[in-house]
Amino acid sequence: MKQADLIIRNGTILTMDASLSIYPEHDLIISDGRICAIEPHGKHEWQAPQSLDAQHCILMPGMINTHSHLPMSWFRGLADDLPLDIWLNQYIWPLEARLLSKSFIYDATLFGAGEMLKSGITMTNDMYFEMSAIADACIKAGLRAMISEAVIEAKMGADYRPAELVLKYKERYQDQPLVDFSLAPHSIYTCSAEMLKRCAQAATTHDLLIHIHLSETRAEVDNCLKEHGKRPVHYLNELGLLDARCIFAHGVHVDSGEMDVLNRKPVSISICTDSNLKLASGLAPIKEYLDHGINLSLGTDSVASNNDLDLLAELSTTAKLHKALNNDPAFLPALEALKLVTINAAKALGVDDKRGSLEVGKDADFLIIDTQDLNSMPLYEPASQLVYATNSRQIRDVFVAGKQVVKNQRLVNLDEAELMHSASRYAEMILKELSK
Amino acid sequence: MKQADLIIRNGTILTMDASLSIYPEHDLIISDGRICAIEPHGKHEWQAPQSLDAQHCILMPGMINTHSHLPMSWFRGLADDLPLDIWLNQYIWPLEARLLSKSFIYDATLFGAGEMLKSGITMTNDMYFEMSAIADACIKAGLRAMISEAVIEAKMGADYRPAELVLKYKERYQDQPLVDFSLAPHSIYTCSAEMLKRCAQAATTHDLLIHIHLSETRAEVDNCLKEHGKRPVHYLNELGLLDARCIFAHGVHVDSGEMDVLNRKPVSISICTDSNLKLASGLAPIKEYLDHGINLSLGTDSVASNNDLDLLAELSTTAKLHKALNNDPAFLPALEALKLVTINAAKALGVDDKRGSLEVGKDADFLIIDTQDLNSMPLYEPASQLVYATNSRQIRDVFVAGKQVVKNQRLVNLDEAELMHSASRYAEMILKELSK
Repeated sequence: MKQADLIIRNGTILTMDASLSIYPEHDLIISDGRICAIEPHGKHEWQAPQSLDAQHCILMPGMINTHSHLPMSWFRGLADDLPLDIWLNQYIWPLEARLLSKSFIYDATLFGAGEMLKSGITMTNDMYFEMSAIADACIKAGLRAMISEAVIEAKMGADYRPAELVLKYKERYQDQPLVDFSLAPHSIYTCSAEMLKRCAQAATTHDLLIHIHLSETRAEVDNCLKEHGKRPVHYLNELGLLDARCIFAHGVHVDSGEMDVLNRKPVSISICTDSNLKLASGLAPIKEYLDHGINLSLGTDSVASNNDLDLLAELSTTAKLHKALNNDPAFLPALEALKLVTINAAKALGVDDKRGSLEVGKDADFLIIDTQDLNSMPLYEPASQLVYATNSRQIRDVFVAGKQVVKNQRLVNLDEAELMHSASRYAEMILKELSK
Repeated sequence: MKQADLIIRNGTILTMDASLSIYPEHDLIISDGRICAIEPHGKHEWQAPQSLDAQHCILMPGMINTHSHLPMSWFRGLADDLPLDIWLNQYIWPLEARLLSKSFIYDATLFGAGEMLKSGITMTNDMYFEMSAIADACIKAGLRAMISEAVIEAKMGADYRPAELVLKYKERYQDQPLVDFSLAPHSIYTCSAEMLKRCAQAATTHDLLIHIHLSETRAEVDNCLKEHGKRPVHYLNELGLLDARCIFAHGVHVDSGEMDVLNRKPVSISICTDSNLKLASGLAPIKEYLDHGINLSLGTDSVASNNDLDLLAELSTTAKLHKALNNDPAFLPALEALKLVTINAAKALGVDDKRGSLEVGKDADFLIIDTQDLNSMPLYEPASQLVYATNSRQIRDVFVAGKQVVKNQRLVNLDEAELMHSASRYAEMILKELSK
């Protein structure tokens, strides 16, 4: 017998590997936090001190969220159904200015990380402030995160050296495999050309990932045309930013000429369907991106504009919506759609050698999804059932690096009652602040 | 003390009454299957042998689904991501032709009714075949239903008298308050002008509700223009059908001239967002309908094209999608959106005097939704939280006519293990049939 740490028995394994293989009645075998074998159930020589039954369950890679703002948990549902400028200028920005602190950010991140894990997100690409508070909370929760500090020039000053902090944290947390850090010039409208250039150079020099908002609203594009005489992608290209590895969040208003530039660069677009719908930002041209061979993944954005972190529900909406927009019910079939939250997202973050699919040698980041539920029956096609009919609450167990972080829809590393208590406490503080 | 049957204690009551009142920390008091009082918690003189704690819960009217095909449960996920004609001609229609029987329909309806109740649907407007099998299953499950037999002329014959069966069933089930029956000419493309006229006359004579598919696809409108020289609404108006009370399912491709006719008639449109997206039928013009003062409600369509019966998730998608389509984040705010699954739906079915809101004298059809969950916190605005952030699994308890039909997300009247066994058995039969 060969020795492993953990065996997940008799599940249907949706690998998301290059051939999108699906293995029914297989065992997932885990050692040292990695997948060491995938074998037909009961027909192998592996043994392990721990095992878990996954009959009638689908196993899939942990979902990877490519655009989030974890510390915004307490702003969920605070001021919905308002025009964007009122929402930002009268609620979000003043509150952030008055309330943000390390502990606010740590507590809100802890809550958000718990919510993400329960929805089957095992890694997120986050942008906010106070990277160490975010990193510490993610480590405590057991959530992988690529963390960045939003560079907003009005806040940081024109002399800000964006790479220093990133490099410092990369070193400080080098023994913490759950977290890594990237560079986040917030957007073209909050950073000068000079600052964007500085970010591009730092990213290229130190091989840092860049995380930036791009063309979320039509106004952003119009202003760029007015100020710089070109559309945002061309503007960023001129500044050298597209030569770095980039994740562009939103990418709602990008035209075909811009896509012709993007498809020759090491960049990805993080589609944020629910946020774009709810804030009326628009409908991202997913088919056109795919036709241009551009890597696409999905991001939740924050709960202030979404209003949840239910990436599976968002995938369902995305897949269905773009069939209608393209008059084609066969567009973006379920198994292809699942790439947006798995392997494509891993590619976007440069971790597809380690994550994004269930393959031997990769990190044991995976979900066990219970299909014994009315809305998942009958079960003809696992991928189709996952995308079109599964409720995220059926994500029974979640593992990150072979360690269980969600067990029967309960968090393993965090106390949910404490998180909820924390939410109530901060909500009170926010309401008090608003009434001033 | 005044005597009632049941008191739901200390919830936040989202009434959906004419002023859309919301009462925090109130008791809902029920007697003889009806709401007899809504009072501040602990500050009234009612007592009851049964009571249920609803602290940290939202109470809202049971949701009303205005377009469904309950007996299609076993076709869920059978043939997704295919062009419409292949899906219909190679899968759904041949299977229906070969497999449908009273027991098939009864079993599938029982399953679908269970699924609806668990998702918070307490009444549905259904169209299929074998009305008595559907009625019996709904009664057993405890689901209210307006049931109709799809009149398809090729199947029934040109001499078919559409009202006879409806009147017969209305009489046979007159002591069963959960079910009622309506008239369902399937569509303009499956019924001749003569048959549609006959339906219109029967509906007017006997005050029957008409349930019909309308302008689901562009092709349907184009064919109508070609064959009848006018668009579907004008064609139906000419046949007298709009003088009856009508629910038009889908209404995706309806223009402003048609809306000018609809808004003077006793008709409603049942929007079917998820089905229309997934089958790429198009995007219904919700804003234009509302601007024309036309009553709108929401329908799930069947699980073969949706693929679930999660009306709350569908409402969330609908509300967000139409903000984006109208470039207005303030369009269709949460509380307005909730009308689509409550009071507007009751109006569509002509039962708004009895259901669709929580008011004294109305039927005690309601949901208890647990907000003690990460994705529902903090809780600033109940309606916003329900529409944008609540998972349907948080619908803890469901009552129909004062009787509990779902308790802690488990069905009261049906055995879920049996339903799932039934699903597996029928799936096997269907796969066998397909392999022939």
